[in-house]
Amino acid sequence: MDDEFSTRLTTRAAEAQNCLDKLLEAQPRNGEIARPERLVAAMRHGVLNGGKRLRPFLVMESAALFGAKPAAALRVAAALECIHCYSLIHDDLPAMDDDDLRRGQPTVHRAFDEATAILAGDSLLTLAFDIIANDDTALSAKAKLTLVSMLARASGLGGMAGGQMYDLDAARTAPDEAGIIRLQAMKTGALIRFACEAGPVIAGAPEPDRERLAEFGSAIGLAFQLADDLLDLTSSTEKMGKATDKDAAAGKATLVALHGADWARSQLKGLVTQATGLLAPYGSACAMLTQAAHFIAARDS
Amino acid sequence: MDDEFSTRLTTRAAEAQNCLDKLLEAQPRNGEIARPERLVAAMRHGVLNGGKRLRPFLVMESAALFGAKPAAALRVAAALECIHCYSLIHDDLPAMDDDDLRRGQPTVHRAFDEATAILAGDSLLTLAFDIIANDDTALSAKAKLTLVSMLARASGLGGMAGGQMYDLDAARTAPDEAGIIRLQAMKTGALIRFACEAGPVIAGAPEPDRERLAEFGSAIGLAFQLADDLLDLTSSTEKMGKATDKDAAAGKATLVALHGADWARSQLKGLVTQATGLLAPYGSACAMLTQAAHFIAARDS
Repeated sequence: MDDEFSTRLTTRAAEAQNCLDKLLEAQPRNGEIARPERLVAAMRHGVLNGGKRLRPFLVMESAALFGAKPAAALRVAAALECIHCYSLIHDDLPAMDDDDLRRGQPTVHRAFDEATAILAGDSLLTLAFDIIANDDTALSAKAKLTLVSMLARASGLGGMAGGQMYDLDAARTAPDEAGIIRLQAMKTGALIRFACEAGPVIAGAPEPDRERLAEFGSAIGLAFQLADDLLDLTSSTEKMGKATDKDAAAGKATLVALHGADWARSQLKGLVTQATGLLAPYGSACAMLTQAAHFIAARDS
Repeated sequence: MDDEFSTRLTTRAAEAQNCLDKLLEAQPRNGEIARPERLVAAMRHGVLNGGKRLRPFLVMESAALFGAKPAAALRVAAALECIHCYSLIHDDLPAMDDDDLRRGQPTVHRAFDEATAILAGDSLLTLAFDIIANDDTALSAKAKLTLVSMLARASGLGGMAGGQMYDLDAARTAPDEAGIIRLQAMKTGALIRFACEAGPVIAGAPEPDRERLAEFGSAIGLAFQLADDLLDLTSSTEKMGKATDKDAAAGKATLVALHGADWARSQLKGLVTQATGLLAPYGSACAMLTQAAHFIAARDS
């Protein structure tokens, strides 16, 4: 990993953490009646957990590329991270993936209880839209509305939540290749695409820039999932000393399970070439986003 | 119940149902990838269930009082109902109230499964903000942003979701009278207040009208909860032939349990007088809202 990129990723993560910490204070905001101590604690547990903040990074860097005010980008980055963290809290629930640990800490429903975890997820989801609508940094009313709409569609029934539904249903419906691609574009791709497309929207950049960054986001979203599936395969291979696949064992359909690791590595290379090619017109200004594409694709090594 | 009011309530409910039916179509919207069949079915099950649509009624009537375009009011009414229905789906979950039936039908997690019910609630919550941000009827950008912000604060950690947290915690914390009032203002009051305050915002009415309608909403929200608690008390008395109280038996603190039914009936009268008094400046134009206040308070009879 490039030193400058690594430093920037750490700096941006700290900025996001700091912003989220302030947004999750005990003090109620104008229009709120009170913030229950236990609910705030559960939300903080689910958010302030030392994540890499990759999605916030993409928002901030894609916004910086078009000269957006950093404070405005940071708000949108924090809103997106609230959505990402809510989805992890709900996905970890016993009725979903039933996970006890996340980043070495008890998941929210283990540290608190299931009801509190459901409410913490609901409240983070709601807060995301609050953060954008109540931004007073630099966003125009038009940008705020576009972002609320984009974020709702990226995360709702036609985006992330819908992708999770397809994923839960996959054991029963056994999706074909097109079905797997759709599932992944929704479940993980939609938020990553949003992160990249948000930059030009925050900056008020022209439509072609928005389209270009959205395409970039789609490519690295696909790479993100491929690298994840590959990581899953190689780590279980190492651990178990033979070529089994955790997802395949769990009955999960992935493109890696379908086509193999070599195919996946070649696909990843192609996606990085495609993604970085899309940014070529911006020259050296997009170095951080280019590095991010490489970083995302290299997670299997 | 006044005949004109009764007819209007039915008409408005049909309008809301029709609007929600269209919003919950299988066809993905611009920016969505696909809508999973099972998720759409679960959302429809949780929403298109023949509710009275009291909150949509309040939005539409408070908007009409200030001359707002009916189509714009209907969108906001539908968004609010999505929030209300998401909260019912999540509250019914085994980890929360564990209810099998709602309006004589299986609850969403019984008709589908828990994971699907969690996702259906999440998706309805998300859709609510989508509906407002993507309105193309008559709302100004300023009104949309104000409504997104108001709705987020009424329904999030400092509003409805926070109230549910306090309610779940009540058995442990045994809230005093002030605590019960706060809990109820958040859990049920905040959305009813939003419904009434939304009208002048949709219409772009002056600030004093907005404040007046918000106060009206607070008063009838309080009345709504009192009538509910009273209904609970009287219906269990009738059913069981003695003065037991379901909520009290469940360890739930209510003002009715604290002060008795006579006190509650007298409070209800006072709240209706206060609420209708607030609307007096609008003369006969506010007949439907005045009737709604009486209707809400009379639910124990």
